[in-house]
Amino acid sequence: EHPHIRYNPLMEEWVTVSPHRMKRPWKGQVEKSEEEEIPSYDPNNSLCPGNTRSSGKVNPQYEGTFLFDNDFPALLKDGPAPSANPDPLFQSAPAYGACQVMCFHPRSDLTLPLMSQSEVREVIDKWAEINTDLGKKYTWVQIFENKGNVMGCSNPHPHCQVWASSYFPNDPAKKHRTQREYYDKHKVPLLVDYVKKELQKQERVVLQNEHWVWLVPYWAIWPYETMLLPKRHVLRIEDLTSAERDALADIMKKLLTKYDNMFEVSFPYSMGWHGAPTGDYLQQDNSHWQLHALYFPPLLRSATVKKFMVGYEMLAQSQRDLTAEQAAEKLKSLPDVHYKSQNS
Amino acid sequence: EHPHIRYNPLMEEWVTVSPHRMKRPWKGQVEKSEEEEIPSYDPNNSLCPGNTRSSGKVNPQYEGTFLFDNDFPALLKDGPAPSANPDPLFQSAPAYGACQVMCFHPRSDLTLPLMSQSEVREVIDKWAEINTDLGKKYTWVQIFENKGNVMGCSNPHPHCQVWASSYFPNDPAKKHRTQREYYDKHKVPLLVDYVKKELQKQERVVLQNEHWVWLVPYWAIWPYETMLLPKRHVLRIEDLTSAERDALADIMKKLLTKYDNMFEVSFPYSMGWHGAPTGDYLQQDNSHWQLHALYFPPLLRSATVKKFMVGYEMLAQSQRDLTAEQAAEKLKSLPDVHYKSQNS
Ligand SMILES: O=P(O)(O)O[C@H]1O[C@H](CO)[C@@H](O)[C@H](O)[C@H]1O
Ligand SMILES: O=P(O)(O)O[C@H]1O[C@H](CO)[C@@H](O)[C@H](O)[C@H]1O
Repeated sequence: EHPHIRYNPLMEEWVTVSPHRMKRPWKGQVEKSEEEEIPSYDPNNSLCPGNTRSSGKVNPQYEGTFLFDNDFPALLKDGPAPSANPDPLFQSAPAYGACQVMCFHPRSDLTLPLMSQSEVREVIDKWAEINTDLGKKYTWVQIFENKGNVMGCSNPHPHCQVWASSYFPNDPAKKHRTQREYYDKHKVPLLVDYVKKELQKQERVVLQNEHWVWLVPYWAIWPYETMLLPKRHVLRIEDLTSAERDALADIMKKLLTKYDNMFEVSFPYSMGWHGAPTGDYLQQDNSHWQLHALYFPPLLRSATVKKFMVGYEMLAQSQRDLTAEQAAEKLKSLPDVHYKSQNS
Repeated sequence: EHPHIRYNPLMEEWVTVSPHRMKRPWKGQVEKSEEEEIPSYDPNNSLCPGNTRSSGKVNPQYEGTFLFDNDFPALLKDGPAPSANPDPLFQSAPAYGACQVMCFHPRSDLTLPLMSQSEVREVIDKWAEINTDLGKKYTWVQIFENKGNVMGCSNPHPHCQVWASSYFPNDPAKKHRTQREYYDKHKVPLLVDYVKKELQKQERVVLQNEHWVWLVPYWAIWPYETMLLPKRHVLRIEDLTSAERDALADIMKKLLTKYDNMFEVSFPYSMGWHGAPTGDYLQQDNSHWQLHALYFPPLLRSATVKKFMVGYEMLAQSQRDLTAEQAAEKLKSLPDVHYKSQNS
């Protein structure tokens, strides 16, 4: 395999693939291994049931998921708009929104792959509810999970966040346009077409069940970046049927187990959902959209050596050190049983 | 100041500005402070004069800068091209290139702000030479420096890298187009116009001398992100006059001193140069381009707490926790004398 570039048709960006680079010696930064011994309850952890958060609010004795407003939101419901400037070099616009946090489970030591399938299903149902609720008012509801210290997560209690905004953020806005253009030209949604072809090729598909496909996209940037897509054409997470939600819980448990088994560590990543926009867009035709989740895990070589997206990547374009096919092969080879539960 | 979004006309992207977020408590990852006691010579450091690199090659007893081919290049001079695929979802293309490393100085303990102005000038002359040499063959010559462990730098000996490529990478290719469109419409290069306006406003200009301006761009993403631009319209680094190069060495020493003084630590960052493309583009009109350097430093609150560009930033759009004006104010307030030299 020789260096080459590959194209991401959703983002209209190229990635540089340098398969031989994995061989170089690494003397750079070594991350602290993610904390392994997290107690199921910690009186000092602001996300545990019954504890007081830094805002002074007290958490209920929650028994399933627990959703609340972020005490330090990046976006606020209202406020003054910046004054308009006609100069194209100094453009600003108002930004309103809502920021929420959802704990997945009352126990701090239970990450998604260690939760039961019905508990994961509860998280999925909550995601659907959030998207519906905040989607009534906001154009874009970004559900995401930052997992692990290395991904800027500041609390080990398993949780995700939601930032809903009045504006359409850069990346999904671009995907809105590229999927629309593809649909107009080919009369089929880009990602529906893509999954069909990946299922034929089988080179990058890692897991599938009746309703879902988990694969390493052809244009992946992060070493073990993946995408999770429904087999049916689905616009938004709340449109999933009950059977599709159960199947999603099943494949999520399996894929996250594979991730954890990679380096026998609770695998850090940022993940999130992209589906058709909401707010005013609920009134429009969004048939060009296909719902999907994205996983961006930073680890490259071991539990402590990550890929740095720095100099060249920040200034020119992303570069990766193994091919998408090599990553898929590696993920396929990993056991489906979680390393922590092997002897239990 | 309330949350709002701002537009980057070079990249056609918005950034979310949430000025009030700096107040939130931080319990997340704390970086190891950058190594402060670096010996001027280390027999085990592969970049020091006279030492043997992991490839087995031996460094000369260099006395100024030292340029060599990267022993583990991400791009190779030649190789087979990937087979063409007509499917728009599976596009790849050949990628050829050259990767080089340049040590700034024989001493490992002398970073750019601690070097003399004439030593910095030597680095600038070398950058100009590299851009001319590799530019004869390659479309894009990306000169960049990853400084600090936290920026994936794997060797504390002060050095930069060059990745030159046959392809035009995403970010500069986009800036090629946006600057062209602005020039066609306004008959003046975007960044020449921008600097003129910033010099009038003085809200985001931190430093200037006869030939250069250092500022926090209106659309900055990283907490203390800055741009360094010539006052004259200049296409490429090799087009700088001798007086402009001296003035560049002067302002580089000053700006890097301010950066180091921020948290009294050798300030980590990725930086690099963007100028008119080369290779076949040398034969074309590139009057819409303006040379500039970009500095992307990750630290946010202290020597050990950085800004994480994760979840929301990876999936939706970049978000910052202070305004560009607040960052400029802070940088202006910092002393011009390096904290390490204050008592010497
Ligand atoms: O080439 P180096 O210094 O070993 O590697 C560093 O810079 C490269 C270019 O920005 C990145 O791709 C690597 O992830 C980073 O660790
Ligand atoms: O909101 P948190 O978890 O405190 O913060 C984390 O996620 C945010 C959204 O991706 C980022 O902007 C922050 O840099 C990161 O530390």
